[in-house]
Amino acid sequence: MNLLFLGTSAGVPTKQRNVTGIALRESKGKGWYLIDCGEGTQHQVLRTKLTFNSLKAILITHVHGDHCYGLPGILASAGMNGRKAPLTIVAPAGIKAWLEATCETTQLGLPFALEFVASDDLPSVEFANMAVATFRLSHRVACYAYAFTEKNVDAALDIEKLTQKGIPRGPLWGQLKQGFDIEFAGELLKSADYLIFKNKPRKVVIAGDNDRPELLIDACAGAQVLVHEATYTQEMAQKAIEVGHSYAKLVADFAESVTLPNLVLTHFSPRYQFNPQASPSIEDIRKEAQSAYSGVLYLARDFLEFTLDKSGHFSEVASE
Amino acid sequence: MNLLFLGTSAGVPTKQRNVTGIALRESKGKGWYLIDCGEGTQHQVLRTKLTFNSLKAILITHVHGDHCYGLPGILASAGMNGRKAPLTIVAPAGIKAWLEATCETTQLGLPFALEFVASDDLPSVEFANMAVATFRLSHRVACYAYAFTEKNVDAALDIEKLTQKGIPRGPLWGQLKQGFDIEFAGELLKSADYLIFKNKPRKVVIAGDNDRPELLIDACAGAQVLVHEATYTQEMAQKAIEVGHSYAKLVADFAESVTLPNLVLTHFSPRYQFNPQASPSIEDIRKEAQSAYSGVLYLARDFLEFTLDKSGHFSEVASE
Repeated sequence: MNLLFLGTSAGVPTKQRNVTGIALRESKGKGWYLIDCGEGTQHQVLRTKLTFNSLKAILITHVHGDHCYGLPGILASAGMNGRKAPLTIVAPAGIKAWLEATCETTQLGLPFALEFVASDDLPSVEFANMAVATFRLSHRVACYAYAFTEKNVDAALDIEKLTQKGIPRGPLWGQLKQGFDIEFAGELLKSADYLIFKNKPRKVVIAGDNDRPELLIDACAGAQVLVHEATYTQEMAQKAIEVGHSYAKLVADFAESVTLPNLVLTHFSPRYQFNPQASPSIEDIRKEAQSAYSGVLYLARDFLEFTLDKSGHFSEVASE
Repeated sequence: MNLLFLGTSAGVPTKQRNVTGIALRESKGKGWYLIDCGEGTQHQVLRTKLTFNSLKAILITHVHGDHCYGLPGILASAGMNGRKAPLTIVAPAGIKAWLEATCETTQLGLPFALEFVASDDLPSVEFANMAVATFRLSHRVACYAYAFTEKNVDAALDIEKLTQKGIPRGPLWGQLKQGFDIEFAGELLKSADYLIFKNKPRKVVIAGDNDRPELLIDACAGAQVLVHEATYTQEMAQKAIEVGHSYAKLVADFAESVTLPNLVLTHFSPRYQFNPQASPSIEDIRKEAQSAYSGVLYLARDFLEFTLDKSGHFSEVASE
């Protein structure tokens, strides 16, 4: 499972950072999910190996423009690139009507269907290889976090149990191993009951804008990674609360309280400069978070990619 | 008067070319006009010396997404950059309602007023230093060309006429020279009647998508420069006509027929590759146009800048 940051700036793009867009790639194949789609996200995708045809779903955390103004363009380009497969869009109320109005005004006919799921219903959405749960956050508008948990985790057959049950070695074992339930001696046997999972399923929580990280306690249970905004440092705490954002220490304190293994901060205000010698810089955000959090801390930047391996180990992918 | 290309690709962005956006800068000061605003135009602006505060107006040629999806984001960023001055938007019907719906859905409050002018009324819009006339084109949707003619052209006083009229040398001469009409001996005297213009006013025509260049005959009268799409070469003529676009020879033939001094082609289909060794490449478009047009031909690319000097001489600005 890989995380690739396509945009890490808050509100407006800068020369070094685009507005929000995060790609989550499945561990098998090329399938990926796009979480938020600020303007220019399709341009960032062009600079990666991701393709519009292998995009499984777009999930929008909230309606602010820096998280959704890239939607019409990425859909138009996917269409012009020949996409035919339906695309799921999980988004707060408003996005569906706005996209429909945009298609009508700009005479955009898409050659694939859009399947909308309203985030406001806190849906659990199941994809072939991924289950997504939705959690409510606190911001100026309705805003959500999406927790991605992999399905079809590698497992070994529980030979002892299979033998006890008298299931003969052969095709039935194979079906159970591949995750299919079977009928045996007039009984429905569930695949999961005859498998021993080697590892916990991988789980990544990606949160939208939020001034109350503690809302993510349930979401973070069993998660190896939380991606959360840290728009400011504590020095700007008053401004942060006014505009519904977090500062580094607030997120770090929460992550520490739930003993989260890996925390990735993103969505930095342009006031924090990219150059670590400048003041204030992104390094100020890092220092503040580091002082409160004893897990592994990362600060996102555009095109930074991470991998979460089967065993739950999370690490940076060396850039090419 | 300077022309700076911010995007020169048709339909979708490529790694080398963004979708349409053209900046026209006034000869005096920092004022500029943005013609079309595809997604990512604000990102391109960040890479130039243009500022959101000195933007005088945005003019949209038509409602297709590759010409307008960057509008909400550029307005949001201008607001976050502190712009307070009203902004004129000249655009076809639909854009106003769409922008208003976008602002409402995405809770975008702008700290400056938008003043909409409907292109469909073929308006002549007067700015302090520029007069803009609108011309109807032929495309799949209502589409327009904008002709920019500079005002306040350098001029000398007509001393003979002033003396004949008995106007005393002094402040009145100064006012006439600066373009102000005056009252003298109970009569209103127009500044333009007492000035000798050294040069023809500079005039640049910027056309949107169009499959009938001959519609620009009137627009091109007295123009030094026409910017026109050449999405395809003649090999793709049938496709071009189907989708309402021009191919190189069609535009070149027209430019030749009106003895246009300078032609800039842009809005190239991504099928024409940037690499001149590839096939088909942008160079195929150049060759086809060159064979039919004896004026000065340019092919636009992103960040290519041109200057049109007082005397009407048009040339590339050396990049830094």
